[in-house]
Amino acid sequence: MTDCLFCKIIEGKIPCTKVYENDKVLAFLDISPVSKGHTLVLPKKHYETIMDADEQTLYELIKTVKKLSNAVMKAMKADGINVETNNKRAAGQLVPHLHVHLIPRFENDGLKFDWPTKKFPDMDEIAEKVKKAL
Amino acid sequence: MTDCLFCKIIEGKIPCTKVYENDKVLAFLDISPVSKGHTLVLPKKHYETIMDADEQTLYELIKTVKKLSNAVMKAMKADGINVETNNKRAAGQLVPHLHVHLIPRFENDGLKFDWPTKKFPDMDEIAEKVKKAL
Repeated sequence: MTDCLFCKIIEGKIPCTKVYENDKVLAFLDISPVSKGHTLVLPKKHYETIMDADEQTLYELIKTVKKLSNAVMKAMKADGINVETNNKRAAGQLVPHLHVHLIPRFENDGLKFDWPTKKFPDMDEIAEKVKKAL
Repeated sequence: MTDCLFCKIIEGKIPCTKVYENDKVLAFLDISPVSKGHTLVLPKKHYETIMDADEQTLYELIKTVKKLSNAVMKAMKADGINVETNNKRAAGQLVPHLHVHLIPRFENDGLKFDWPTKKFPDMDEIAEKVKKAL
């Protein structure tokens, strides 16, 4: 897409620190890493979110995410890894081209998910709503 | 696996608020939700992390993640959704059976990723290490 930052990186018009590429997928180091080895994996075909992408693209994406997660863990001698994708602006998506963050983690690295848990009394109703939307 | 909480849920020995099930994958509401509609999607076959799972299992998993992300967004009238999996204890994984969190998000819901970004002067060296580990 003409105005998409990641499409421009895929086309080579904007540089990146590439770690992997094949016909369908590109992976490069995040320019604003939250940990050493923070990597982005994205399909070359432009989709905004995981909800729009076709199944074959998602298959190529997750195979590469697995391969890269292993490689990043090994290369960084990490103790764990967060694999996550933010879909839509309200979820923190900054570039509207589907991309998966691989964030290597280390014992006592101080990074925390401190989102408070909640109690919803209507769990069965919530589940029914989701089932109907399937 | 005998002592795995999620295997017990899959076998029906421990209850859950199910939203979707097929031969390969189960999805249910997180018992400790951080937002309304917070859902877990997991393969029925026991794997500890995304790094261990076979490619066919990952394909089934991501197809279901796409389907459920759309359904959860629609059912909860959400504005966005975080899709993420924590791999290994250092990354916040509490149950050692691969599972993907779907966290519906809403404008101004107050949830933030406030992990500070860092600068590493040796980005090319980091990329070389990852490439060698592939």
